[in-house]
Amino acid sequence: MRSLKLNADMGESFGPWVMGLDHEVMPYVDMANIACGFHASDPDVMRRTIRLAKDHGVSIGAHPAYPDLVGFGRRSMACSASEIENLVLYQIGALSGLCRAESTEVRYVKPHGALYNDMAKKPEIFAAVARAVRAFDPDLPLMTLATRQTDTMREQAEQHGIRLWFEAFADRAYDSEGRLVARSEPGAVHHDPELIINQARLIATGQPLTASDGSDLVLQADTLCVHGDNEESIAAVRRIRDMLNTLESAS
Amino acid sequence: MRSLKLNADMGESFGPWVMGLDHEVMPYVDMANIACGFHASDPDVMRRTIRLAKDHGVSIGAHPAYPDLVGFGRRSMACSASEIENLVLYQIGALSGLCRAESTEVRYVKPHGALYNDMAKKPEIFAAVARAVRAFDPDLPLMTLATRQTDTMREQAEQHGIRLWFEAFADRAYDSEGRLVARSEPGAVHHDPELIINQARLIATGQPLTASDGSDLVLQADTLCVHGDNEESIAAVRRIRDMLNTLESAS
Amino acid sequence: MRSLKLNADMGESFGPWVMGLDHEVMPYVDMANIACGFHASDPDVMRRTIRLAKDHGVSIGAHPAYPDLVGFGRRSMACSASEIENLVLYQIGALSGLCRAESTEVRYVKPHGALYNDMAKKPEIFAAVARAVRAFDPDLPLMTLATRQTDTMREQAEQHGIRLWFEAFADRAYDSEGRLVARSEPGAVHHDPELIINQARLIATGQPLTASDGSDLVLQADTLCVHGDNEESIAAVRRIRDMLNTLESAS
Amino acid sequence: MRSLKLNADMGESFGPWVMGLDHEVMPYVDMANIACGFHASDPDVMRRTIRLAKDHGVSIGAHPAYPDLVGFGRRSMACSASEIENLVLYQIGALSGLCRAESTEVRYVKPHGALYNDMAKKPEIFAAVARAVRAFDPDLPLMTLATRQTDTMREQAEQHGIRLWFEAFADRAYDSEGRLVARSEPGAVHHDPELIINQARLIATGQPLTASDGSDLVLQADTLCVHGDNEESIAAVRRIRDMLNTLESAS
Repeated sequence: MRSLKLNADMGESFGPWVMGLDHEVMPYVDMANIACGFHASDPDVMRRTIRLAKDHGVSIGAHPAYPDLVGFGRRSMACSASEIENLVLYQIGALSGLCRAESTEVRYVKPHGALYNDMAKKPEIFAAVARAVRAFDPDLPLMTLATRQTDTMREQAEQHGIRLWFEAFADRAYDSEGRLVARSEPGAVHHDPELIINQARLIATGQPLTASDGSDLVLQADTLCVHGDNEESIAAVRRIRDMLNTLESAS
Repeated sequence: MRSLKLNADMGESFGPWVMGLDHEVMPYVDMANIACGFHASDPDVMRRTIRLAKDHGVSIGAHPAYPDLVGFGRRSMACSASEIENLVLYQIGALSGLCRAESTEVRYVKPHGALYNDMAKKPEIFAAVARAVRAFDPDLPLMTLATRQTDTMREQAEQHGIRLWFEAFADRAYDSEGRLVARSEPGAVHHDPELIINQARLIATGQPLTASDGSDLVLQADTLCVHGDNEESIAAVRRIRDMLNTLESAS
Repeated sequence: MRSLKLNADMGESFGPWVMGLDHEVMPYVDMANIACGFHASDPDVMRRTIRLAKDHGVSIGAHPAYPDLVGFGRRSMACSASEIENLVLYQIGALSGLCRAESTEVRYVKPHGALYNDMAKKPEIFAAVARAVRAFDPDLPLMTLATRQTDTMREQAEQHGIRLWFEAFADRAYDSEGRLVARSEPGAVHHDPELIINQARLIATGQPLTASDGSDLVLQADTLCVHGDNEESIAAVRRIRDMLNTLESAS
Repeated sequence: MRSLKLNADMGESFGPWVMGLDHEVMPYVDMANIACGFHASDPDVMRRTIRLAKDHGVSIGAHPAYPDLVGFGRRSMACSASEIENLVLYQIGALSGLCRAESTEVRYVKPHGALYNDMAKKPEIFAAVARAVRAFDPDLPLMTLATRQTDTMREQAEQHGIRLWFEAFADRAYDSEGRLVARSEPGAVHHDPELIINQARLIATGQPLTASDGSDLVLQADTLCVHGDNEESIAAVRRIRDMLNTLESAS
């Protein structure tokens, strides 16, 4: 069985404003999605976060977003495909420039927020991001949501000559298609640690989750998104890490 | 005799706003200093400018600046040395990312506006920029002002392990130390085409200019900064290019 | 017959970038829609534009937009209603602050670009803008598109306690509902000066236009939007102004 | 004896980033210096902060800054006098616009960070800020640092036709001229609550402080700047408020 990697959004502080307990979550994850200055972060925060990731042997990913700092990249913007291609290249490049100063490099790309969602919904946006990733480095995997059916996405990626990494969530409810239930819906976000650990275990072992309509849902995921927002989420990350370590040593 | 290269600031449009006649000046220069989004330019403008430079076989340089779009990077900002190091890395990286999509790369670095001036005045700012350049790629030359005395600058560069390219101006008056006369002073900027061509010829052939106090001033310059702002400056660039071509074919 | 006012977008320069021939168009219009720094303009440009408007006895309107400078406010953004209400208030207030320094004031509000379009399509966005206008000053008219049917819009305005000014375009094709034909469609924008003058005359005299499907379309407009982008559009503005003057002196 | 007012910087959150315990400190202060979007805050944060101030009967002041969000307005920028005049007007106006939606208004102006410091050092910057304040509303007091000698400042204010409010600090060391000891110096910031309360009491009662060179320093202050950064500073504010209440009831 292939091991499930843990990824977390990092480097989301900006100027004097602090967000996220990066120091506390970094020891438990495999991959750090580092904001690139469009929705969060700045050159200093990026540099510090790269150094922290490197110190913990954590793989660095670019976390590009729409140019919407005050909205934290969460508001969809009607950008054209070529605008998206270029702003993704700009952001990967910027992070990559700072990586050089720490003798490391960008290993994957995970779009953030509204761009992540729009990419999953609109093939022309997926294509724009894919072109950016391939132009930067065709070996960089692009991280996207693991849903029930991933054939279309896999075909698109193949056409564009890029690799995909599929991501799942342990703390979110899924609909029967394997899409995340909108945060505005009741029960969309799990808060019970047991529920979260259990969902992580099911994903890690390839067993079905129960979708919001009661149906079985199997997600083929390469990585699980975890959060370093607060002490509760850090506690969950630690337990998920222990669970995965146990699974791996048992395998 | 080593040939004098022509460099010009390019890609200074932003969003819907156009600045500079990049298409008209590109055919006559050797090096394009491309703005990186902090004082001008955006990912789309950068991409187009890279493509234009590549089409004309023009070498691409990063033109990083203080984060001051409305002030066009012309206002000095009290940034710390580490802030400067990181914002220069960010900007070189961003341009480099877009260069990959056009299968080309950044070949040199020329700080813009107030950062260019501050770097010449303050050793700690020079050091910050030098660290950024070396970290990104120690083979990238850093462009700085050719003044009467460049020993200190050369020593600093050697200490930091980077190369320098010295730049002169054909349309600016110099003081006896080889510094540019401030634009606020009368006679600081030459408008007479004959004066400009003549100063370019003196610089290209290593002959002395007359400084503002009447003294002789010899500048050892690798490159001459020219401008594509308007038709007059384009006409001057064409004449300088012809003059340099004549000098080279005669040598 | 009530006279048709001419309005134009103004103050769309930003920092060192110039846009629009404000000095040339200002003498011919009645109302200047001044950008407020979110899609264009900056405090200096705003101040100069206010002064220019005042010198010509032109009424000053706030031209608020989504926070998208690089996209010039033309890209729709998924802002919440309360975000829109507050960003409109911020921008009207900012322009109003600069007006005080020239002993004048904001007289009306015209949302810009994507916000203008979104307001016409989505009642909750219209309501957000209306709340902002009413809170700032219930006497300020809100400018919106004159379409075939304006009853719904008028009811909404009445509910929110604000006044509307309806705006028409002389250089744009209309569909049968009185909506502007999208710029991406062929024939959407008129370039022939005779066509433009004629459409202006029809609107000014309350006669029907021919919609894109051939049907008659009567627009009840308080104001006509004209443009100071280039010499051609300035020439058209002059002719429209002459035509309106002739109509008025004849009435 | 005239009572000493307590003022605190507020509304320094930005987008998703939270700064300051505004809800905890608001009940204890008289004046809220609200950031206006250039160094911190956004239209939503401003609106919420205005509402909170109004709920507690706290007077609202505009807290304008240099346009440097990532640097939190703490980095001096070489803005021209007219740029400063206009950006201050823009910011006061923006806050004023949002105040209208809560049926309140801006009552005073306190420049932030580097602009506050530069204004105290450079008469042309003081004049620029003074022109902005007078143009907006000559009745709005401008808050500035209470130093040993305030005659020059008072004359300047009189020339510009504006009022001044002098501000002192209970948690900062002063030099013999009554200027704040730079934060980089040892002992510049007091952390001992007893020291802070005692300094507040001396200022409130017009008794001399001991300057950094051991000399006596009397500050004539209208208001004391307090901080809502964390629980310690909130505790200090509560004790200072109690001390002032005791003084007032005894007078």
